[in-house]
Amino acid sequence: MNSFGRNFRITSFGESHGAAVGVIIDGCPAGMKLAVQDIQPLLDQRRPGTSPLTSSRNEMDRVEILSGIFEGKTTGAPIALIVRNENQNSKDYEEIREKFRPGHADFTYQEKYGIRDHRGGGRSSGRETIGRVAAGAVALMYLSEHGITVTGKILLVHGKSNPDEIEREICSAKEAGDSVGGIVEITAVGCPSGLGDPVFGKLDALIAGAMMGIGAVKGVEIGDGFAVSGKFGSENNDPMTRDGFMSNHAGGILGGISSGQDIVVRIAVKPTPSIARIQQTRDIHGNVVEISVGGRHDPCIVPRIVPVAEAMLALVLMDCMLEQAKRQ
Amino acid sequence: MNSFGRNFRITSFGESHGAAVGVIIDGCPAGMKLAVQDIQPLLDQRRPGTSPLTSSRNEMDRVEILSGIFEGKTTGAPIALIVRNENQNSKDYEEIREKFRPGHADFTYQEKYGIRDHRGGGRSSGRETIGRVAAGAVALMYLSEHGITVTGKILLVHGKSNPDEIEREICSAKEAGDSVGGIVEITAVGCPSGLGDPVFGKLDALIAGAMMGIGAVKGVEIGDGFAVSGKFGSENNDPMTRDGFMSNHAGGILGGISSGQDIVVRIAVKPTPSIARIQQTRDIHGNVVEISVGGRHDPCIVPRIVPVAEAMLALVLMDCMLEQAKRQ
Amino acid sequence: MNSFGRNFRITSFGESHGAAVGVIIDGCPAGMKLAVQDIQPLLDQRRPGTSPLTSSRNEMDRVEILSGIFEGKTTGAPIALIVRNENQNSKDYEEIREKFRPGHADFTYQEKYGIRDHRGGGRSSGRETIGRVAAGAVALMYLSEHGITVTGKILLVHGKSNPDEIEREICSAKEAGDSVGGIVEITAVGCPSGLGDPVFGKLDALIAGAMMGIGAVKGVEIGDGFAVSGKFGSENNDPMTRDGFMSNHAGGILGGISSGQDIVVRIAVKPTPSIARIQQTRDIHGNVVEISVGGRHDPCIVPRIVPVAEAMLALVLMDCMLEQAKRQ
Amino acid sequence: MNSFGRNFRITSFGESHGAAVGVIIDGCPAGMKLAVQDIQPLLDQRRPGTSPLTSSRNEMDRVEILSGIFEGKTTGAPIALIVRNENQNSKDYEEIREKFRPGHADFTYQEKYGIRDHRGGGRSSGRETIGRVAAGAVALMYLSEHGITVTGKILLVHGKSNPDEIEREICSAKEAGDSVGGIVEITAVGCPSGLGDPVFGKLDALIAGAMMGIGAVKGVEIGDGFAVSGKFGSENNDPMTRDGFMSNHAGGILGGISSGQDIVVRIAVKPTPSIARIQQTRDIHGNVVEISVGGRHDPCIVPRIVPVAEAMLALVLMDCMLEQAKRQ
Repeated sequence: MNSFGRNFRITSFGESHGAAVGVIIDGCPAGMKLAVQDIQPLLDQRRPGTSPLTSSRNEMDRVEILSGIFEGKTTGAPIALIVRNENQNSKDYEEIREKFRPGHADFTYQEKYGIRDHRGGGRSSGRETIGRVAAGAVALMYLSEHGITVTGKILLVHGKSNPDEIEREICSAKEAGDSVGGIVEITAVGCPSGLGDPVFGKLDALIAGAMMGIGAVKGVEIGDGFAVSGKFGSENNDPMTRDGFMSNHAGGILGGISSGQDIVVRIAVKPTPSIARIQQTRDIHGNVVEISVGGRHDPCIVPRIVPVAEAMLALVLMDCMLEQAKRQ
Repeated sequence: MNSFGRNFRITSFGESHGAAVGVIIDGCPAGMKLAVQDIQPLLDQRRPGTSPLTSSRNEMDRVEILSGIFEGKTTGAPIALIVRNENQNSKDYEEIREKFRPGHADFTYQEKYGIRDHRGGGRSSGRETIGRVAAGAVALMYLSEHGITVTGKILLVHGKSNPDEIEREICSAKEAGDSVGGIVEITAVGCPSGLGDPVFGKLDALIAGAMMGIGAVKGVEIGDGFAVSGKFGSENNDPMTRDGFMSNHAGGILGGISSGQDIVVRIAVKPTPSIARIQQTRDIHGNVVEISVGGRHDPCIVPRIVPVAEAMLALVLMDCMLEQAKRQ
Repeated sequence: MNSFGRNFRITSFGESHGAAVGVIIDGCPAGMKLAVQDIQPLLDQRRPGTSPLTSSRNEMDRVEILSGIFEGKTTGAPIALIVRNENQNSKDYEEIREKFRPGHADFTYQEKYGIRDHRGGGRSSGRETIGRVAAGAVALMYLSEHGITVTGKILLVHGKSNPDEIEREICSAKEAGDSVGGIVEITAVGCPSGLGDPVFGKLDALIAGAMMGIGAVKGVEIGDGFAVSGKFGSENNDPMTRDGFMSNHAGGILGGISSGQDIVVRIAVKPTPSIARIQQTRDIHGNVVEISVGGRHDPCIVPRIVPVAEAMLALVLMDCMLEQAKRQ
Repeated sequence: MNSFGRNFRITSFGESHGAAVGVIIDGCPAGMKLAVQDIQPLLDQRRPGTSPLTSSRNEMDRVEILSGIFEGKTTGAPIALIVRNENQNSKDYEEIREKFRPGHADFTYQEKYGIRDHRGGGRSSGRETIGRVAAGAVALMYLSEHGITVTGKILLVHGKSNPDEIEREICSAKEAGDSVGGIVEITAVGCPSGLGDPVFGKLDALIAGAMMGIGAVKGVEIGDGFAVSGKFGSENNDPMTRDGFMSNHAGGILGGISSGQDIVVRIAVKPTPSIARIQQTRDIHGNVVEISVGGRHDPCIVPRIVPVAEAMLALVLMDCMLEQAKRQ
């Protein structure tokens, strides 16, 4: 299932070392100004090779618009966006043709399909997120025109919150041939009340599905999240005032529907599974073998997940905005 | 959106104080033995009135099968299950006709629809989960026939894990006119590898959406969950052995696809928002008012969420089992 | 697949001789007045037993509203409508427990599911249309409030268009233990332009699918339909005027989108396959046997298809109205 | 809505004079051999410029595979197919920038979206079918491996069935600056019984929707189609034999489910609306104006619809094959 959304529906395609990755957006309102320069900046944020802390795979990830735009505006027709793959180094991956990298999708894809494009992880590669980010950039534009902003930030990396300490943690993990995880928080400001649908289209449920669907994410919480487990109702409820609420423990969502407060989401990101340190694993013939995952990998994927998480939240909100329009 | 699932698709209906609540199951395989006694026990687990710790609303919640069964077996036709509402006490709710209960969906439903069935929360009531649990019971039967068991348990209530301490926390909250939250863990044992679909049908994404869509749930994690944020990749990866894995930090899912290990999910449950203690809120005319939520409420919803969470995990797994069948 | 529609989504359930048949409507706008008396009249039109020309199965088909209404108005929650089955005469059907009725779904259901509720055709019975008609009545109310009317009429029965001749054809078929088919035309007046979506959500495609999905329908045409095959483009195009069009060969749909003209649809209805005349068939053991289909059957289903076809067109239009609202 | 199918789901994109047209296939089984040469031949059948009877727009329509294939086999990942547009002559279309061509989607697109890519019809162009045909070619390969063949043929053009007469009709229409319509029959041989789902997923309903969604199609019939309106039940029922049926009036579908007989579908194709003869129409300012549609158009679209109709029937059957696999 490579499509997401009901009204602003995106379909993603492409593998890490195939000809291209991309996305089709179906359901974008007509008459919206849209050009490459509206999409490219968010893609640049997720691009590797921009810092010593990220993978050295150096690709410009230039997006091309194939359809859906006429004289600078959307027409209501599907918008096809593609990014050609350039800096592929498939021979880096010869060793993993037959070995399953621990913590990766290699084993499960092989089990599911009986065939696997091992080059750079194929479809399970982080490059797949290019499609989501490109589509998310379009959603972010629409939201921005409706007074909604979506912003992500790193809360923690390997237990540290201070930027200098974070950098040190990442560098030292890299030197050790290891990797580290962290926590990202994404906030949407300016959302109208009424987004989300009972019972199986709750805004928090859609957000949770969208976030957990990002590779490497192992946890999602809204508002106070797991901390609610230690609280009294009288502490956790947000009393109402004439104009709103006195607090926002709920993270902007009540009964699955936006309340007009800020929507606050946090996600837990696991340490990159690709590490140089030697690990035990299995090959496709069933032999136990050792593996050191070479190639160009991020010792910490947390910074590059920020634009992906922003994109996913934007996609959910945009979809709900269009859904809500049906009721009015 | 009151439907869930792609292949074993359920559609839920009904309000707390309407004529009935229920569910239609579309896509249940034909030829499966099914009778009321296969469904009733799980409903009984979520039923209130069975302990001094739960709401005293006393209903038998007897399920009736309206369609889809012929001579004791499923026919492939939709299975309609209904439970008549009995012990309604609508006048308990007169006070909240115009007041928004803090922490409830009252305000957001009013904003979204401009009309609201206030009686017992209407559609946003916990009674809505009867449909899910009834459908989940059918899914659990199917899974059981395929060697899969799904079990939930309470990990924590208000920071306590010991049953006696949990009971004490709940009782003391009740006496104080307050409520407490907690954490539930649900585990599926016996799942085959290969369940779940890249990119937007990942098993963990489906589970996260399903769990966060349960009222009162504010966080979801898979495997080590939020703890991954403080770990090294070399700690978090699960090395493979000849027959499986040396550990299960991943919680049974790699790249969104089941690995054959136990699937481990935890959810954070907020303290019941209905409390007797006086809170500040607003009414539908915009006035700031005080409210004490009377009626018969659970001081802790955690125990009654266990069967709901089991049902939701069962529904996701069953749906993925049928999806997977298309590939073989 | 027992659901229909994307925005005004209905889910149908129930068998001819089960406890009840019914429908869940998901996505009905909130705040609409709705009561049993708004739905019952259309159900009465499809009800048998009202004329010597129809089946003598005499049921009142009283609809009950189980959910979704509060103080006389829709709330946005799913509307559950059920009709209890009453006048079942299952022993009429003992003969067909093992024999496949020619022209019926008996053989194909058995092949597909390996089990079959033979009583009255089970799920494939015409009684299944009660759900569609009940939901269609709700859609018709909404359309009517938006200035749109949907009307069906019989064009032909067994080649005759005159009502007296039609009655004679049906009576003489009945006496001969036989049945006859015909043609129904459904027209929607007052539709706005802009309904329907390129490329796979075309209004005519949705209508064709909806109509061909009615049991006994074997052909669908829009506007001039099959007659276009003998025409020149210069005859078939509808020239435009300042305010509209000079003709309506297109039947109100251009490029899959409504033009604002009347939408004109015709469907071909086959003669009822249940006939008393002896036919050759097969039983579930593979033996060739003879069959005379007893029970209470309509010698001509055309009149009772009219409200079903109206309902289906109303459901499609309503769904497209809500879809279109997203764009504005 | 630019997606079609539930299990073998295609998403189409692209305009006549944009950068490219194409399709994403989601849900193709893994492990199937697939290369450009498997897809190109069906595209060549729908390509213009191959005969004096078709449009002289001369494009090679070379398909490129962007994703989903690894070492010559499908991997289960989405297959992206694109065809770059080459021989565009946008200035041919300057006249229709502001005029609505009769019989075309110009007026309704303008009404729906408030903006319109007028060049060659934009999204409503026949070039959009390239995506469907490319995807259909993949489906045809799969069906062929399962013993199913799908074949289309021209039954009638402007009332003539003889090939020489058909050619004469088309030539004489072309000389007169006019166009002609016709009827196409598509047959699937070798289908297993059991395809299609009650109640809203009937095989004939899916086929009718698929066919009516092809531009220029105004009618669809299955088996005896409209002729059933003049028949007795005793004539129209297909008696069963030990191994099958004595006739095939039903066109291979009973109760919406395939019976194992040949599936027989006919579609009515309207005369191409683009004609040189002067017609009255309106412009976007509301003025009544005259129009002669220049450019390179087919005087009869019937021959080029044959591969499109084959593709659509193949897509429906493939989707039902995968759906059916879930039940076994």
